[in-house]
Amino acid sequence: MATPACSEDFWRFVKNGAPDNANGLILESVRESLIRQEDTIVFNLIERAKFPLNSPVYDEPCAQIPGCCGSLLEFIVKETESLQAKVGRYESPEENPFFPDALPPPVVTPYNYPQVLHPAAASININKTIWNMYVKELLPLFTVQGDDGNYGSTASSDVQCLQALSRRIHYGKFVAEVKFRDAPQDYGPAIRAQDRDALMKLLTFESVEEMVKRRVEKKAMVFGQEVNLGDRGDKGNYKLDPSIVSRLYGEWVMPLTKDVQVEYLLRRLD
Amino acid sequence: MATPACSEDFWRFVKNGAPDNANGLILESVRESLIRQEDTIVFNLIERAKFPLNSPVYDEPCAQIPGCCGSLLEFIVKETESLQAKVGRYESPEENPFFPDALPPPVVTPYNYPQVLHPAAASININKTIWNMYVKELLPLFTVQGDDGNYGSTASSDVQCLQALSRRIHYGKFVAEVKFRDAPQDYGPAIRAQDRDALMKLLTFESVEEMVKRRVEKKAMVFGQEVNLGDRGDKGNYKLDPSIVSRLYGEWVMPLTKDVQVEYLLRRLD
Repeated sequence: MATPACSEDFWRFVKNGAPDNANGLILESVRESLIRQEDTIVFNLIERAKFPLNSPVYDEPCAQIPGCCGSLLEFIVKETESLQAKVGRYESPEENPFFPDALPPPVVTPYNYPQVLHPAAASININKTIWNMYVKELLPLFTVQGDDGNYGSTASSDVQCLQALSRRIHYGKFVAEVKFRDAPQDYGPAIRAQDRDALMKLLTFESVEEMVKRRVEKKAMVFGQEVNLGDRGDKGNYKLDPSIVSRLYGEWVMPLTKDVQVEYLLRRLD
Repeated sequence: MATPACSEDFWRFVKNGAPDNANGLILESVRESLIRQEDTIVFNLIERAKFPLNSPVYDEPCAQIPGCCGSLLEFIVKETESLQAKVGRYESPEENPFFPDALPPPVVTPYNYPQVLHPAAASININKTIWNMYVKELLPLFTVQGDDGNYGSTASSDVQCLQALSRRIHYGKFVAEVKFRDAPQDYGPAIRAQDRDALMKLLTFESVEEMVKRRVEKKAMVFGQEVNLGDRGDKGNYKLDPSIVSRLYGEWVMPLTKDVQVEYLLRRLD
């Protein structure tokens, strides 16, 4: 039987109020969600790696599109976010748009998300940094050079990658909230002193980060292998270089998540 | 290093004209594309299985949305196709819209797809059947009962599944073209006699179909496992029931692909 979504558990714990060990349960759910999101990120990168770099998606202004002065990727992300805003995506505290200006309001009954986070969370959005990291640093690492003309499919695949990365990195808000609730006595002084370095130190566990890097590398190996019948797969011929996923987490995903956590904690007692 | 996309090879072979063994190369590329599309389908089903069934996405008319009289899924698929049509998705002979009426024209320079298929291919679209299969038969099999209110995310995930299945099933047009070019003497008489049964018999290789079913089941096991460090994963606790993927291929994907092939071949000599 398929396993249900862990984020469901998370919202159920949050919604149904607090038994004595509520924070322990929420912590476990946050952890499970982060692990599950690794799979989504790896799947999406594997799908993007089907296409070569296709640099015109990012470089050239799509002057042919009326009213669009950015790249084709910018056009597709904006239009996708506009559609998803109509169906309530950005009502969720887990989602952060890349182009928050002028998003249409939801046209469906909003889902009643419980208030878990401090209201300051809504003002934290580092998607500009994520966009630049993805387009300028990550894409050239994991796609082959070249241009096959499939710009629309390429950009649609980029939307999936960007949204998965954004969701994972901004999940730092929940991580920070849970950590704060777990040990307010540890975080309180650094927050009151607005001491970024002290907060970053409290949030950093190098051995955990090393473990995450090894796990996502393994996931890229498992999910990116050629699966054949009769043997254990064509090891070594991966659809996505596993070491790049490890590097993505080590250099960008985890540091940016900690940046989100620090920004959140700095405002946690406002 | 990541492996490049096989469909690139396909288009390169097709575009660059015909060495003596051109059809052999195209046949191999079609086969590789079909195998690669299995991964995409399994990834997308695993992602959809994160959410429970969420039946209001399919059942209720989204009366709140101005101008929309179908379900939320219908609204999202229509809007997604409209956006993707603008960036040229449906110029590709590999793509077939679910709602072909009133799609906007592309606003970007169209990619010059080589003409591989007989022009009759454009009139073959069995997406209504695929939609009904997916919503009425497949979804209740691989999602858990329930409603978590995440309708927008659920429907976005459905779009990915529907498009991956549609692409795979309509790829039957290419399969049929390659088979026809490979043995026109075998197919010609049945086509001229407009004999569906004879064509279906020519296209059916039970041992190959059994192998495909076993392979996609294995892919669901590999891609749907919980990947942990230090062991070979938590076998038996799959995010997607592998036997359902085998059934999906045996009962729907392969029979529907053959329906597409037969429809195509019946018009191949028009």
